[in-house]
Amino acid sequence: MNGKNKGIEQILKRQFVFRGSYLHLQKLKIKLPDGRRGEREIVRVKDAVAVLPIDDQKNVHLVRQYRPAINRTLVEIPAGLLDREEKIADAAVRECEEETGYRPGVLKELITYAHAEGYSTGFITLFLGTDLEYTGNIHLDATEFLEPVCMSFDELHRLVEKNEIVDSKTILCTLLSREWMSRGWTKR
Amino acid sequence: MNGKNKGIEQILKRQFVFRGSYLHLQKLKIKLPDGRRGEREIVRVKDAVAVLPIDDQKNVHLVRQYRPAINRTLVEIPAGLLDREEKIADAAVRECEEETGYRPGVLKELITYAHAEGYSTGFITLFLGTDLEYTGNIHLDATEFLEPVCMSFDELHRLVEKNEIVDSKTILCTLLSREWMSRGWTKR
Repeated sequence: MNGKNKGIEQILKRQFVFRGSYLHLQKLKIKLPDGRRGEREIVRVKDAVAVLPIDDQKNVHLVRQYRPAINRTLVEIPAGLLDREEKIADAAVRECEEETGYRPGVLKELITYAHAEGYSTGFITLFLGTDLEYTGNIHLDATEFLEPVCMSFDELHRLVEKNEIVDSKTILCTLLSREWMSRGWTKR
Repeated sequence: MNGKNKGIEQILKRQFVFRGSYLHLQKLKIKLPDGRRGEREIVRVKDAVAVLPIDDQKNVHLVRQYRPAINRTLVEIPAGLLDREEKIADAAVRECEEETGYRPGVLKELITYAHAEGYSTGFITLFLGTDLEYTGNIHLDATEFLEPVCMSFDELHRLVEKNEIVDSKTILCTLLSREWMSRGWTKR
């Protein structure tokens, strides 16, 4: 399905216009499929992981975080950027423990998606995390200010249905976890 | 839930570092909740709309499109940017017709979400479109090269489950449309 060449643009030149600490911006000079020239603006970011940690009482452990880009404080599943040498499942366990203090013993990989395919290189992989152990090892990045939020899974699903949860990773992870659990999911 | 002030950053200065045709990049100087100073890199993009158009035979009308940011050709629901003066439902109908030739007579609004809350201002609103009329009025932007793709809704759902669909809007719109239809949804 994704292997067709028709309609593909040819990249003639890549130019960095900004190199930041979180993201880079590139301008591409391209040749369109009809031969004309064009430009694309591409944001280069690291890939990410996110985990919905759910305990044996079906409570979920989330974080409340201010997001300056949209000027809102969101309730979200724990998430973070993938370090280059790190295995994706290890990053998921690490981010979950660092942000919530809960370390998942079992991870179910749910999906990988491009979060802004129109202009960004970034992919994010979502996991359901179970067999939680509370370690309390919360380690936030120097500029992260998170508050823990605990609620039942059903309450989280209600918030998604009411569109009070507004970030794609938390919405998708909740919907996919619910499908997974409703299929007679057992812990292992 | 989103109204708390704890943990909010104060923006001291906004500086545009790039103004493009598709996106702008801003650097924010901020005061962190603990009083220290920091920086944030913010991508400013227009908000967007996307529609899953489904006909009376339960076929869906999609587009195949090359995405330079991730260097892949994706099968996606029709989508586009919101013009400033346009009503969001009008934009959804317009984009659907311009990209697929099918004009939805009825729209069901499913959800609005931030696609990259960590660094982008962009929100996208998803619709299910029914009562399709084929007008054939396909009008693509000068640099858009799309191919129509038609399949059954069930086939689309299978591709989502197999993670062969990788953009957040198509994944989410498929899952939410399925939930909506399974609840005894009738056409109007």
